[in-house]
Amino acid sequence: MSSPEEQAFRLLTEYSNGFMVSQVLFAACELGVFDLLAEAPEPLGAAAVAARLGTSSHGTELLLDTCVSLKLLQVETKTGKALYQNTELSSTYLVRASPKCQGNMLRYLARTTYLCWGHLTQAVRDGRNQYLEAFGVPSDQLFSAIYRSEDERLQFMRGLQDVWSVSGRPVLGAFDLSPFPLICDVGDSAIRGLLDDLVAVNTCWGARRSHFPSACHLPCAFPGCSGALAKECTSLYPACRVAVFDTPEVVQTAEKHFSFPEAARISFCAGDFFKDPLPEADLYILARVLHDWTDERCSRLLARIHGACKPGGGVLVIESLLAADGRGPLTAQLYSLNMLVQTEGRERTPAQYRALLAAAGFRHVQCRRTGGLYDAILATR
Amino acid sequence: MSSPEEQAFRLLTEYSNGFMVSQVLFAACELGVFDLLAEAPEPLGAAAVAARLGTSSHGTELLLDTCVSLKLLQVETKTGKALYQNTELSSTYLVRASPKCQGNMLRYLARTTYLCWGHLTQAVRDGRNQYLEAFGVPSDQLFSAIYRSEDERLQFMRGLQDVWSVSGRPVLGAFDLSPFPLICDVGDSAIRGLLDDLVAVNTCWGARRSHFPSACHLPCAFPGCSGALAKECTSLYPACRVAVFDTPEVVQTAEKHFSFPEAARISFCAGDFFKDPLPEADLYILARVLHDWTDERCSRLLARIHGACKPGGGVLVIESLLAADGRGPLTAQLYSLNMLVQTEGRERTPAQYRALLAAAGFRHVQCRRTGGLYDAILATR
Repeated sequence: MSSPEEQAFRLLTEYSNGFMVSQVLFAACELGVFDLLAEAPEPLGAAAVAARLGTSSHGTELLLDTCVSLKLLQVETKTGKALYQNTELSSTYLVRASPKCQGNMLRYLARTTYLCWGHLTQAVRDGRNQYLEAFGVPSDQLFSAIYRSEDERLQFMRGLQDVWSVSGRPVLGAFDLSPFPLICDVGDSAIRGLLDDLVAVNTCWGARRSHFPSACHLPCAFPGCSGALAKECTSLYPACRVAVFDTPEVVQTAEKHFSFPEAARISFCAGDFFKDPLPEADLYILARVLHDWTDERCSRLLARIHGACKPGGGVLVIESLLAADGRGPLTAQLYSLNMLVQTEGRERTPAQYRALLAAAGFRHVQCRRTGGLYDAILATR
Repeated sequence: MSSPEEQAFRLLTEYSNGFMVSQVLFAACELGVFDLLAEAPEPLGAAAVAARLGTSSHGTELLLDTCVSLKLLQVETKTGKALYQNTELSSTYLVRASPKCQGNMLRYLARTTYLCWGHLTQAVRDGRNQYLEAFGVPSDQLFSAIYRSEDERLQFMRGLQDVWSVSGRPVLGAFDLSPFPLICDVGDSAIRGLLDDLVAVNTCWGARRSHFPSACHLPCAFPGCSGALAKECTSLYPACRVAVFDTPEVVQTAEKHFSFPEAARISFCAGDFFKDPLPEADLYILARVLHDWTDERCSRLLARIHGACKPGGGVLVIESLLAADGRGPLTAQLYSLNMLVQTEGRERTPAQYRALLAAAGFRHVQCRRTGGLYDAILATR
């Protein structure tokens, strides 16, 4: 039995060591520990893992044993030798070959988000993101900072695919979307025109876009930023078709790096949300979009969607909902702080989303918490 | 009820967000949130906190509410206004005026350790610390890297004071040390001669040192690196006297920045552990020292202490003990990885310490786990 003061100190230690736990997870993924163990025909010893990964023997053994304590690996001792293998957790979420692998998102967290959070103190002081401090890039054009290189864009897009491979189904199933056969998934980066009116976009796509929906219903081998969400959508609603609306840069990156089996029912549309006509659709999806932006910009975006909606049409907003009083759940609060260090936005309460949607003209607004990382708000005209 | 797969995903999310939790704690400390609330005559609203700290209103409110979820703050709503105050946890460990405040250690973790851990992947690959990668300083002379500026030395020393203000008593009380009236606490940095034979030390202290113990029993107003441990020691064992053995640089830093009421029973001795005669003592304390060094260097150090010990004398080793099989507790494993990214050493199992001590000639070795962060090993000649 420990005293309340000792328990408090233990909690404090857990918090102060939290970044170490994150990095153990990130490093084991980055080094390929879980992939190696998944591919090996039998459990491996630490020396074998170190030899195959080209890592130090002491560092490797320590990393593996720490992963055991975190339930990321399991170990059994045979004739005095410790042999490691994946757990259910790592097999499902950390092995590249698994459809639910989170490796890309974890890599993005490790390489980008971790560094931005190193400047949280300054972000709270300034009330703005820390791209300049963390990476030396100005962030007055947010997605120019987020997509500051082809590698960064690719990493970010792959990370989003990981997110929706796990969280897509719960949010898309929170409401019955079968009354909306034609869905437009608005990619976050398509909204950069909000910030960056000077960037010339769509030169090569303009002709096709003007013919939507036919142009956007081209069979599409390159899911955009939210392609993984579109995929979940066609899987969950067999009658629906999904147009993904995103920028030419995202299209180009996707074209080079992704492939997609549901091509016949998913199309891709390159455009600038604030300059170009919106694709016609029964339902617009804004997944992890509004949280990037100020209230003012969200209002402009939602008003434009409302203008494009037919009667009975609507918008599905997918975000991490804060509690009514803003004081929980912890994950949504951390994500809201993440918006502070990485974007111009914040996570919001249901009432805040209702207010934004009502101001844009939406009459019927329903919020559903999924119990997972992301929740759903359905608003119809 | 959630499925095992959902539970696993939740655990994964907790790990991947761990660094965010650490930074919330670090930022709230650094900004002075807990000190402000401790000094205020009544609970404060977020706007008042932001105004007094000069921080953004949105960032401040979000930080405060996240602290509430982490039990670092408590909130009550009066006439519609949320008012924040410290919890027992923050009053005890996060307010500067508290004798157990961990603020300096947290600042060290935030500014130094967090950055080194950003290179954990590379540390596991290379099997060595990451000072060069994180700070651009070579680390072949370890304490030249750790003490790379006066500010860093001061921050590190203050951090150690925080550590022993909480963990000193449990480790010093793990064994009855009253049979050892004269104790020498060997500061970690005094051992840098192991690595740095060329540095000229002690020029101004040489004369005094040669007259130990009288020189070292000068009433001392400047506790060295482990001065806080010496203080706990004199408090717990009213008959003992403690000589703190550390380098002139540490003495200078301490002289400028610390003061000490137990001066009459604590003395300070500047020296190089591997060049200079050891202070005479009944018991030598090595607190968080051996974990910084390789087995070979630990052996040299322990052999030298054994040589200085009288029959019945001994050494008290204070470290985070790993489990017998090296697979826990998690905190000791994380600290061992911390040694990988920040030093040349590692945390060790009781058997590994026993082997090192036995090889140095110590006959009787006892290990005691305290249930806290640090454990104790008493070895006598």
